[in-house]
Amino acid sequence: MKQHFDIVIVGGGIIGCAIGYYLAKENTSVAVLESQSIGGKSTGAAAGMLGAHSEYKEFKQLYPFARSSQLLYQELYDEIKELTGIDFEMKRGGLLKLAFSASEKEEMASIYKLPAIEWLNREEAKEKVSTLTTSIIGAAFLKEDVHVTPIAVCNGFSTGAQTLGAEIFEYTNVSEITKQDSQYKIKTSRGDFTAAQVVIASGVWSNYFFQNMGLTNRIIPVKGECIAAMNEEIPLKHSIFHDQHYIVPRNNGQLIIGATKKWNDWNEKPTLEGIESVIKKAKEMIPAIKDMKMTNCWAGLRPQTFDGNPFIGEHPEMKGIYFAAGHQRNGILLAPATGKMVRDLLLGNPVDKKWIEAFKVERSISKSTELEEVKL
Amino acid sequence: MKQHFDIVIVGGGIIGCAIGYYLAKENTSVAVLESQSIGGKSTGAAAGMLGAHSEYKEFKQLYPFARSSQLLYQELYDEIKELTGIDFEMKRGGLLKLAFSASEKEEMASIYKLPAIEWLNREEAKEKVSTLTTSIIGAAFLKEDVHVTPIAVCNGFSTGAQTLGAEIFEYTNVSEITKQDSQYKIKTSRGDFTAAQVVIASGVWSNYFFQNMGLTNRIIPVKGECIAAMNEEIPLKHSIFHDQHYIVPRNNGQLIIGATKKWNDWNEKPTLEGIESVIKKAKEMIPAIKDMKMTNCWAGLRPQTFDGNPFIGEHPEMKGIYFAAGHQRNGILLAPATGKMVRDLLLGNPVDKKWIEAFKVERSISKSTELEEVKL
Amino acid sequence: MKQHFDIVIVGGGIIGCAIGYYLAKENTSVAVLESQSIGGKSTGAAAGMLGAHSEYKEFKQLYPFARSSQLLYQELYDEIKELTGIDFEMKRGGLLKLAFSASEKEEMASIYKLPAIEWLNREEAKEKVSTLTTSIIGAAFLKEDVHVTPIAVCNGFSTGAQTLGAEIFEYTNVSEITKQDSQYKIKTSRGDFTAAQVVIASGVWSNYFFQNMGLTNRIIPVKGECIAAMNEEIPLKHSIFHDQHYIVPRNNGQLIIGATKKWNDWNEKPTLEGIESVIKKAKEMIPAIKDMKMTNCWAGLRPQTFDGNPFIGEHPEMKGIYFAAGHQRNGILLAPATGKMVRDLLLGNPVDKKWIEAFKVERSISKSTELEEVKL
Amino acid sequence: MKQHFDIVIVGGGIIGCAIGYYLAKENTSVAVLESQSIGGKSTGAAAGMLGAHSEYKEFKQLYPFARSSQLLYQELYDEIKELTGIDFEMKRGGLLKLAFSASEKEEMASIYKLPAIEWLNREEAKEKVSTLTTSIIGAAFLKEDVHVTPIAVCNGFSTGAQTLGAEIFEYTNVSEITKQDSQYKIKTSRGDFTAAQVVIASGVWSNYFFQNMGLTNRIIPVKGECIAAMNEEIPLKHSIFHDQHYIVPRNNGQLIIGATKKWNDWNEKPTLEGIESVIKKAKEMIPAIKDMKMTNCWAGLRPQTFDGNPFIGEHPEMKGIYFAAGHQRNGILLAPATGKMVRDLLLGNPVDKKWIEAFKVERSISKSTELEEVKL
Ligand SMILES: Cc1cc2nc3c(=O)[nH]c(=O)nc-3n(C[C@H](O)[C@H](O)[C@H](O)COP(=O)(O)OP(=O)(O)OC[C@H]3O[C@@H](n4cnc5c(N)ncnc54)[C@H](O)[C@@H]3O)c2cc1C
Ligand SMILES: Cc1cc2nc3c(=O)[nH]c(=O)nc-3n(C[C@H](O)[C@H](O)[C@H](O)COP(=O)(O)OP(=O)(O)OC[C@H]3O[C@@H](n4cnc5c(N)ncnc54)[C@H](O)[C@@H]3O)c2cc1C
Ligand SMILES: Cc1cc2nc3c(=O)[nH]c(=O)nc-3n(C[C@H](O)[C@H](O)[C@H](O)COP(=O)(O)OP(=O)(O)OC[C@H]3O[C@@H](n4cnc5c(N)ncnc54)[C@H](O)[C@@H]3O)c2cc1C
Ligand SMILES: Cc1cc2nc3c(=O)[nH]c(=O)nc-3n(C[C@H](O)[C@H](O)[C@H](O)COP(=O)(O)OP(=O)(O)OC[C@H]3O[C@@H](n4cnc5c(N)ncnc54)[C@H](O)[C@@H]3O)c2cc1C
Repeated sequence: MKQHFDIVIVGGGIIGCAIGYYLAKENTSVAVLESQSIGGKSTGAAAGMLGAHSEYKEFKQLYPFARSSQLLYQELYDEIKELTGIDFEMKRGGLLKLAFSASEKEEMASIYKLPAIEWLNREEAKEKVSTLTTSIIGAAFLKEDVHVTPIAVCNGFSTGAQTLGAEIFEYTNVSEITKQDSQYKIKTSRGDFTAAQVVIASGVWSNYFFQNMGLTNRIIPVKGECIAAMNEEIPLKHSIFHDQHYIVPRNNGQLIIGATKKWNDWNEKPTLEGIESVIKKAKEMIPAIKDMKMTNCWAGLRPQTFDGNPFIGEHPEMKGIYFAAGHQRNGILLAPATGKMVRDLLLGNPVDKKWIEAFKVERSISKSTELEEVKL
Repeated sequence: MKQHFDIVIVGGGIIGCAIGYYLAKENTSVAVLESQSIGGKSTGAAAGMLGAHSEYKEFKQLYPFARSSQLLYQELYDEIKELTGIDFEMKRGGLLKLAFSASEKEEMASIYKLPAIEWLNREEAKEKVSTLTTSIIGAAFLKEDVHVTPIAVCNGFSTGAQTLGAEIFEYTNVSEITKQDSQYKIKTSRGDFTAAQVVIASGVWSNYFFQNMGLTNRIIPVKGECIAAMNEEIPLKHSIFHDQHYIVPRNNGQLIIGATKKWNDWNEKPTLEGIESVIKKAKEMIPAIKDMKMTNCWAGLRPQTFDGNPFIGEHPEMKGIYFAAGHQRNGILLAPATGKMVRDLLLGNPVDKKWIEAFKVERSISKSTELEEVKL
Repeated sequence: MKQHFDIVIVGGGIIGCAIGYYLAKENTSVAVLESQSIGGKSTGAAAGMLGAHSEYKEFKQLYPFARSSQLLYQELYDEIKELTGIDFEMKRGGLLKLAFSASEKEEMASIYKLPAIEWLNREEAKEKVSTLTTSIIGAAFLKEDVHVTPIAVCNGFSTGAQTLGAEIFEYTNVSEITKQDSQYKIKTSRGDFTAAQVVIASGVWSNYFFQNMGLTNRIIPVKGECIAAMNEEIPLKHSIFHDQHYIVPRNNGQLIIGATKKWNDWNEKPTLEGIESVIKKAKEMIPAIKDMKMTNCWAGLRPQTFDGNPFIGEHPEMKGIYFAAGHQRNGILLAPATGKMVRDLLLGNPVDKKWIEAFKVERSISKSTELEEVKL
Repeated sequence: MKQHFDIVIVGGGIIGCAIGYYLAKENTSVAVLESQSIGGKSTGAAAGMLGAHSEYKEFKQLYPFARSSQLLYQELYDEIKELTGIDFEMKRGGLLKLAFSASEKEEMASIYKLPAIEWLNREEAKEKVSTLTTSIIGAAFLKEDVHVTPIAVCNGFSTGAQTLGAEIFEYTNVSEITKQDSQYKIKTSRGDFTAAQVVIASGVWSNYFFQNMGLTNRIIPVKGECIAAMNEEIPLKHSIFHDQHYIVPRNNGQLIIGATKKWNDWNEKPTLEGIESVIKKAKEMIPAIKDMKMTNCWAGLRPQTFDGNPFIGEHPEMKGIYFAAGHQRNGILLAPATGKMVRDLLLGNPVDKKWIEAFKVERSISKSTELEEVKL
């Protein structure tokens, strides 16, 4: 088994696989090492909204990055389908962000000036989705906040990367990374790998590598619980969003309903209370949803940073070590832009200064202890 | 394929399988015809409490029958294990029926004089189950209301019956039963069967045969929705019961939590609202349950009759046609006694007059139209 | 609950739902009654190939009908997506029908003259699918034998029909259909329905209605067993076909591998031997498949008629009763054309005489007893 | 959250949980840290045979240890049931080890002198299991090689330990263990723990800790693939064993059929070829098994050492660090004895010298490189 690569990526979630894909397209020698199975952690739990606008307020300076990633999905869709046969189900209905009060409407004021956003009053909103609660005063219609099936995107990246020459190693846990001569040695459960450059893309578990390599950065899990329901009667063609809860229609007629936010909870299974609360919230948005048939439930851990921006950049001291983790509630959206940015960093291509600055690893060193106080 | 039997049973839920088992023990020639798969309908959805006492009030004159069935389980357990290797997991912790108020305590007054019942005040109850809500004033401890795993009992009966010579035909839907000379012809999806005696044990779907054979009896579905949760921390050794909701510990550490009651709802899938409401009720009994991990959810249809008693007896005109259906919320409990009683009816053995009277098919002919008004 | 409709369809597989959809588009008053749940039987088990050409030899005079249905899928795809939000995943890679010997190549001679067919020699075939066995001499490339996800098509039809005003009743078993004045009474587990016209679309279970209404037609189940495997490394963009076995790539990267043929076997669960044999066959086509990860297995019953053509037409005596069943291994392919043809029959629109003749119910009356001798 | 304990156990498989249980019984302050969820790895994949005799030849000097563990299960069964309500389903039918030839009979000669072993000729064997192949010449009947449900034992240990005061932390990955003053610091994904004594019970993943703490010991995964089938007709009351393949009946009527042996394969999912081969093997033992219904399939990694004995003992230099890993195909059987032995080592109780010697960590230091040549 060949165990030397120019570049080794640690973590096979959507971030690691996107990076692998963009690097494989450049004919680099690249491997992804995944502790369990591809896309099985946070990525597999996600709803898949590409919410560049719905999360606009939270994004702040991140918005252009998010928007560029959203646009990348357009070309990726055909590219991945052509290359791998995988159709990651880009659903184009857009998203309705509900306002139950004048103040909620106002809160969204900042996004109305953005492209492809339209304010709908109650009647207009109910014309789009007749089953919406009558308690709203209206909704912002975010036409381009489409959504995808996250695990399919992740499989698309990983199969695509393999087709282009990358190697994927599942069930390969990385336990240590050390400098060895001019390269890095990556200790894993199935033996040592070596590489000149290493990218840590291990989601919330990247903490370990920060520590292991002398950094105080921290990523906190924000657990989210979801359910799926079979939508037999009411075709829903738009995602519905309110107060960070949502109802998202999948291609097969299922609805994904989520999600709770449990700060610093590492347990990856859904609790009774969590399920109860997402049902309650969904009923507030679409009362008739109460009669739908429940088919599944699960949970995942969002990788949260102290300021809401991911860490994307090189280790301040260990040249050749890169991080790409901490995409919190928007890792599906941000995966293509992250993949591209990391490719450019590694290959020495130009990268937008603003983004380098916003995401750099060393920014949090002094502040990371305050993370627990940040309002999410 | 042999398709003549002395006795054919229509329906392979716990009732049909129990009858098949008791008849096979007498060396009769017997077959069970099941439309889908063994135990896949109401039986597979049940919690498995043997609640002879917890449902005492509802039982009225049925109590001695229920109690005799509960006692039959004792010997059955070893018998089935010996014969088939199947252990249907008789769990002996008994049941705590909670009282949140003096009036609830009073309502249970009738059962205190019964064998094996004990009143526990709040402290005593919490000694047994430390996680109980403090809102109760106490609980009746029904020591002998143990429970079983319903699908395992049903498989035990069906495998046991086969071992003793009976035949089980799955995926065999019975569409019509007609007199043919001195016997009955049973039309099915896989061809015709003939038999001298036929037992209809088709749960809530027995309606069709009542109609098909000129009777106006009706059975109404009362849909029940349940969830399973993994009980990782708090060993629960007793079932908890209140207001027809319950938390039942299984052998493997899981808790079964149920159940809603939806009158005349034929849909066999759980709704979001149903799941929400069983979680809410469970939290009222054991608040800490909110943190348990949800693993599954499902629904089933309880076969309800106008007076709460099952129909067990011969067709008033068509000699040789028997019914055994309508066991509503207690079919698991009542299966052994029903199996034995039907065996005795078919073989001409003596049967307690009171039970014949209470369960006879013709009792409801005049009253069945009122069924929908009955308070359940 | 409204229980009178102009048209009632019995059976909610793909055939019943397609008919419901085409009728709902004409603003008729129509209901679909389904004994269990929508698409849960043969339809849910299918691979989803639209094999108008791969099954050409078997089709004989059916080919133009099959081909027209295949072409209907093109417009349906966008129509259903627009109407319901459901994307039934039309996968356009086409199909490679392998030849392991000169005689197998010859057997396919008849199809080379058809549109969109190309003969590939071994090298050309392996260029398309590099993992193909080297034992083949070549393959016919059937470009337009694309495939769909059957349950999604079925849900698309049923949700679409509802959106257009039809009603779908799940868990509603039809037990009898009788003439009542100028209309039909349809007895079901949830009460009686009435309709002027009734369509029996109950797949292999239509047998009962033939008998119930005085016909000797018979449909025989041909059980098929399948597995799903995760295709992590080798993107497969074409379906592979040989000797009625196949490997079909789904959009999400999974492969569907099937299927056995078990004559007159009613059991709907896969056996160990069946699974073993589909794996063996798949390895003959793509040896490297042996290392793929198995994720699921299941079985379904193909509704087979004595001459391989479905029964589509009116009851010879009971005017207003129609049949649409017996689509054997091609019901997914044939669903749109069947839906359209039944719509036209019911609404009195013109229908191609050849098809009326080929599918008429009375054709088999004299021959149905020979069914068991037919080579499948 | 309290994160200091006297003893920390790394790994929540059956070995870690057994140790936690025996230590909790002694009122120690103990925690189990599990990277994923309790029993989810090798333990959850096991069949559960307690094969002290069936694996006699392989055991060599390990036999008395294995036998003592088998006997411990007797008392554990009631103890765990009483304490936690969990019934881990001890099935007492014993095991038939088949001989297809005189030489295979001979190979088993060594075990006939052991307690509770009986040689059965073909007729006697078929009297016990009428469906056995006629190709055997006979079978050794190992009456006391009963079996259990591994995940239930593991949950029993973990719930029991918690009931007695231990703490279990799921989703807590241990990344490093370092000496810190007079105790050890255990770095995990959810923060640091400290403890005076640490036990590594991480199955095949213990490799990392050997390396991390300067040892060259190695554990190799031997992947095993299994299936479950529903045994509807043939009650099987004994396990059947041949050539390290087996058919094991569970309490609920299911059969567990296994298992392949794939040296150094880290992938935890079953392959098509693996499934095919276990079916083939099972048919050789019980031909009629071919018609049983397949319900599930999975894989797990057996932790294999160079000489077949587990490593149980203290780190040669780092006092207070213990290992308990490498139980290969017999970890379920050996869990109680291992739990007890580790408890005694930690608490300074006397332990049998022979076992200390046979299992000590330093024995392999010089030989571990040869591991790959060992015949398994
Ligand atoms: C309920 C929920 C809903 C969400 N909805 C959305 C949404 O609608 N839109 C959106 O954009 N985002 C959404 N997200 C967020 C999104 O899922 C995450 O931001 C994204 O998946 C993060 O991807 P990742 O690759 O960084 O992490 P992960 O998917 O968690 O992948 C990290 C991988 O690293 C592996 N790993 C860890 N340690 C090691 C090691 N030592 N060695 C090897 N491998 C290792 C892990 O096994 C894992 O597979 C949602 C999240 C949740 C929980
Ligand atoms: C949520 C829930 C919880 C419950 N909890 C308990 C409990 O704790 N204790 C207790 O004692 N009881 C309980 N019950 C009640 C118990 O489940 C039922 O009373 C019992 O299962 C009824 O058994 P049955 O065999 O009559 O019906 P079913 O199990 O429904 O069996 C009837 C069978 O007949 C078959 N059939 C129907 N029509 C035909 C046909 N035409 N041809 C061939 N076959 C046909 C069906 O497919 C089915 O398998 C509960 C029920 C529910 C829904
Ligand atoms: C393994 C396998 C692979 C296949 N692959 C393909 C393929 O690749 N391409 C292709 O074109 N075809 C394929 N087929 C064939 C295709 O699946 C069938 O031809 C098609 O699904 C038949 O549809 P249907 O609606 O007639 O039957 P079904 O899907 O069986 O639907 C009939 C419905 O009627 C209901 N019903 C029955 N009795 C009653 C009653 N009394 N009252 C109410 N409802 C009732 C049933 O519950 C059922 O839902 C495959 C089939 C199998 C088994
Ligand atoms: C197919 C199959 C059949 C078998 N049949 C039998 C049988 O019939 N009888 C029998 O006696 N044995 C059987 N075995 C063997 C038995 O399953 C194993 O010997 C036993 O489960 C080993 O237990 P364990 O606790 O050491 O390992 P595991 O169950 O693998 O547990 C180790 C645990 O450590 C955790 N872990 C790993 N790294 C870390 C870390 N860094 N931090 C925290 N936690 C960590 C893992 O997540 C895992 O849960 C079988 C095995 C297989 C695969």
